[in-house]
Amino acid sequence: MTEHILRAFDEEIVELRGLISEMGGRAESAIDRAIDALSRRDSGLAASVVADDKRIDELEVAIERLAVQMMTLRAPMADDLRETVAALKIAGVIERIGDYAKNIAKRVPQISGSSKIEALSVLPAMAQLAGDMLHDVLDAFAARDWEAAMEVADRDRAVDDFYNSIFRTLLTFMMENPATIGEATHLLFIAKNLERIGDHATNVAEMVYFAARGEYMPERERGHDAL
Amino acid sequence: MTEHILRAFDEEIVELRGLISEMGGRAESAIDRAIDALSRRDSGLAASVVADDKRIDELEVAIERLAVQMMTLRAPMADDLRETVAALKIAGVIERIGDYAKNIAKRVPQISGSSKIEALSVLPAMAQLAGDMLHDVLDAFAARDWEAAMEVADRDRAVDDFYNSIFRTLLTFMMENPATIGEATHLLFIAKNLERIGDHATNVAEMVYFAARGEYMPERERGHDAL
Repeated sequence: MTEHILRAFDEEIVELRGLISEMGGRAESAIDRAIDALSRRDSGLAASVVADDKRIDELEVAIERLAVQMMTLRAPMADDLRETVAALKIAGVIERIGDYAKNIAKRVPQISGSSKIEALSVLPAMAQLAGDMLHDVLDAFAARDWEAAMEVADRDRAVDDFYNSIFRTLLTFMMENPATIGEATHLLFIAKNLERIGDHATNVAEMVYFAARGEYMPERERGHDAL
Repeated sequence: MTEHILRAFDEEIVELRGLISEMGGRAESAIDRAIDALSRRDSGLAASVVADDKRIDELEVAIERLAVQMMTLRAPMADDLRETVAALKIAGVIERIGDYAKNIAKRVPQISGSSKIEALSVLPAMAQLAGDMLHDVLDAFAARDWEAAMEVADRDRAVDDFYNSIFRTLLTFMMENPATIGEATHLLFIAKNLERIGDHATNVAEMVYFAARGEYMPERERGHDAL
């Protein structure tokens, strides 16, 4: 392999990491803004989250194109191949996380300004946990740090616990206040979306682990499985 | 490119299609059996759907490995490259569809044998629509038939309509029967899972279209967007 080809590959890996980082940052911001829009019942902000999802989708296409080009033209080996494949798959996962944030934003207009459902004040803390998982796992990817990735995967348990607690609280609330069932159901789906974001961040952690080590992350002690 | 390499690539494409077809068949069967388990409150059948999901996950790994090997060793061009990339992505989507079926199965033990919630009798018809979409879009992939893929994408609207109708029915039912809120919520999530299966089959249709034509499927007239 010539020096020229090696340098081109290294440059492309840097570009690929940059695109993943930009895409991840946009997904993180989408989660933050969707939950902020929910807390403040700000339909304008929610609409901008929905509109901005297009850019996340475009970044996925750009990452896929670059990763496939790298695989077919450079035929990378071992670590480099695993990182390229991981980038391709991570882009797919971030795209879905963006969709979850968009789905949360779309529900904002369904929640009335005067809603007194207590879950509303718990969701931002849950969103913070899930958003931090995404942030930290993308840092782990950029640093090829499999230990940091494992540590992120362990935090999914806390997100699941949050979800299970909100699920029970919302059900009780609905039984006691049948008139709020419509709104409470939207909050239930929002909690579910955040729980799924935690799952997806965990999937990314497993990909980072595999890319760095060439073997699968050992099965972790799963907490209460969220239904 | 030598005759030898060309023949190997064609053989690999056949193997890749076979794996996708097996994986899709297993996901389809998982949907059927999960809904059958729900209708009959058969926890044993539900448990087998959950256990069998492992095989779907293994097939995804096998497809990914083969597709990456084909890209790096054979450096396919144009149509062949698009089909290889599509297979890789479709495997990821089928894996998720398998997860949705597994999630439906996991909820079966939460629904009592005496439940009278009417949505229970509507869900099988909705599952049939979503399962047929998956079946037909994988046939379209195997046949590189972009017209059939478009036809499948159009059917997502009917699945969304089903979901919206079940959503409204369940909410009304919950308001009138607050004691059933726990069960009804599980049915709501099951309906949501089926709605997502329809979305994912539509994503596959878009991938089949792109693989066959080298351009993106035109934006379709979307029906009522399911929240």
